Amino acid sequence: MSKKIAGPEIERLVQLLSRLPGLGPRSGRKAVLALLKRRNDLLVPLSEALNVAVEKIAECPKCGNLDTVSPCSICRDQRRDAGLIVVVEEVGDLWALERAGVVSGRYHVLGGHLSPLDGIGPDKLNIASLVERARAGEASEILLALNATVEGQSTAHYVSEQLAPLGVAVSRLAQGVPIGGELDYLDEGTLAAAIKSRRRL
Amino acid sequence: MSKKIAGPEIERLVQLLSRLPGLGPRSGRKAVLALLKRRNDLLVPLSEALNVAVEKIAECPKCGNLDTVSPCSICRDQRRDAGLIVVVEEVGDLWALERAGVVSGRYHVLGGHLSPLDGIGPDKLNIASLVERARAGEASEILLALNATVEGQSTAHYVSEQLAPLGVAVSRLAQGVPIGGELDYLDEGTLAAAIKSRRRL
Repeated sequence: MSKKIAGPEIERLVQLLSRLPGLGPRSGRKAVLALLKRRNDLLVPLSEALNVAVEKIAECPKCGNLDTVSPCSICRDQRRDAGLIVVVEEVGDLWALERAGVVSGRYHVLGGHLSPLDGIGPDKLNIASLVERARAGEASEILLALNATVEGQSTAHYVSEQLAPLGVAVSRLAQGVPIGGELDYLDEGTLAAAIKSRRRL
Repeated sequence: MSKKIAGPEIERLVQLLSRLPGLGPRSGRKAVLALLKRRNDLLVPLSEALNVAVEKIAECPKCGNLDTVSPCSICRDQRRDAGLIVVVEEVGDLWALERAGVVSGRYHVLGGHLSPLDGIGPDKLNIASLVERARAGEASEILLALNATVEGQSTAHYVSEQLAPLGVAVSRLAQGVPIGGELDYLDEGTLAAAIKSRRRL
């Protein structure tokens, strides 16, 4: 806020909430008002949940997932397919795959994608630890489930080169027409990928 | 989230943040990821700011404003015009007027507007305390700065009736063309109000 309109404690709260993705100064103020108006069913529980997050939630040292236990509950889950490691850019991607319930194996979260212009080289991502897991023979297949963007795909290319000498099978997600997709609305790149990877019936 | 994809502590945080105005399940998850990724410059400060809010921020017993001091810093401000009380629906309205810097007096926050269908009668709003302030001779003018909506205006009507016997001057905001407004885009009600309250040059 350009002009101070409430005490410093309220200003600080507005300023911090405004920095959450999807919120700005205006919606940050609305969020603070909602919190202060709903003290017992929103403000106090959120405050407690954040205290728990600060104290307990940390990155899994093995795969980079976020959890309150270390290693994370997915790494600990003995029912998971130990032979498959699914590599994702962010924890949000891991959540998306878990919501879909389509991954039998475990994960490895890179923490982003390569972006030389932003100074994000291989050393800024969890690539060395992935190579280490592969070298230790932890998995027979590593599936690169990175975003189908230029950055995601060039990161996948780099990672697959690092894994190549280790003899582990490296795969990537299929590309093509999304389920429910109408050809008329799809971009050229998707159509080209769908033609190129066509399947015999 | 329909499907549990992270530990209960993270799920709880997503669920609470999703209930803030402007956020939903998807943006709630994005907010949690942003918080956990930016631990030191976002998660920890926000957690601390909310702890302060829980402990310190309360409703001013006099005017209904939210502040860490009681009575609030506006009620305490001796430089303010003691003769004017500006009545608003919500603290957000008070903030809007303070940002504009257009109020010389103090405030009275009703806490909403009359809405009989939602069970919000005069007893649910801070109307009795406003009448009490007027009866005590605290102000010579009470300005009803309520929203120019049906609910705001019927609330203004009710409040002005309660204040009528006390002999205090009651005013309301002017209605008309907003600054920068183009006639072509204004609704009939605004145009009618602007014509009706036209000023001689």
